[in-house]
Amino acid sequence: MKKKRLKKNQKGLVIIFTGDGKGKTTSALGMALRAAGHRKKVLMVQFIKDFSDYGEIKFSKRCPQDIEIYSMGKGYVGIFGDKLPLSEHKKAAKRALEFARKKGLSGRYFMIILDEINVALKLRLLKVDEVIKFIKRLRAKVHLVLTGRNAPKKLIKFADLVTEMKEIKHPYTKGILAQEGIEY
Amino acid sequence: MKKKRLKKNQKGLVIIFTGDGKGKTTSALGMALRAAGHRKKVLMVQFIKDFSDYGEIKFSKRCPQDIEIYSMGKGYVGIFGDKLPLSEHKKAAKRALEFARKKGLSGRYFMIILDEINVALKLRLLKVDEVIKFIKRLRAKVHLVLTGRNAPKKLIKFADLVTEMKEIKHPYTKGILAQEGIEY
Repeated sequence: MKKKRLKKNQKGLVIIFTGDGKGKTTSALGMALRAAGHRKKVLMVQFIKDFSDYGEIKFSKRCPQDIEIYSMGKGYVGIFGDKLPLSEHKKAAKRALEFARKKGLSGRYFMIILDEINVALKLRLLKVDEVIKFIKRLRAKVHLVLTGRNAPKKLIKFADLVTEMKEIKHPYTKGILAQEGIEY
Repeated sequence: MKKKRLKKNQKGLVIIFTGDGKGKTTSALGMALRAAGHRKKVLMVQFIKDFSDYGEIKFSKRCPQDIEIYSMGKGYVGIFGDKLPLSEHKKAAKRALEFARKKGLSGRYFMIILDEINVALKLRLLKVDEVIKFIKRLRAKVHLVLTGRNAPKKLIKFADLVTEMKEIKHPYTKGILAQEGIEY
């Protein structure tokens, strides 16, 4: 079946999921599942992350016709024993954005999720202005979803839909560790 | 492949997505997609909702091995031209909870999502105490995810993980209508 994309002259929505609570990437994945139900194709490009054991990545390998996911980060930046020079993290982020641009311009996707891009912005791996330029160009072709805590104000101003995921309670604080199928 | 369920003596997590922002049901769906990646089976029982054109329902019909979704509500309550007696809405909510209980006790699921159950509670279609009783019984078997705005305090106290989805900006306020693949 032909995948549905944006209609002619339709402008893609710019959606941001931010905040310190659980549900940002997960919400974006839920949008992907919903789109898949309508036979619309979704691309997720992950910044920062480089972990291949995520459920969503396994799903994407099994159902690439529904969602394609590419983990293009180099892992945590400056924490948890990261010894990579910042320039390497920057290179990876630029590569990921360029990859998303090319994929997006192909016109094959209904939605592109830039997962954790807000974190890449906060860490100055990318400049807000280049991301806004990206959005201006790409939204003619696709809906865009940007996730990660600390979304910059300039980006929020530019978006159509913004939700802050606020942590009210988290099991880490109760000493329960992250588990497969829930946190990843 | 055999679907993975909870380990022996493991207690299921109780997760709540509430608040007025977008991302509650969507987050729950994202958890389902993630679980599907790990070959874990998810059940979603929808309260209030009775709309069959949702992307998630189409997805569930196509991939019932990943997620089963049942819309068991009778539509909006007391608004948008609803003329059904409240008793009918109550009956539907009770039926949905009983259905989820039976399904959950079967031990076939890794996670059960009670979609919009917080709204059913707010509208007094269900009592908080019966839902807490349900949780106490079922969490021996499955992880539980409860969605909908206005989660009762008593329920929040009982949960392990609670996120409030806070609306910062929504396209309705900009006059953009709900669209397929985004809102439903």
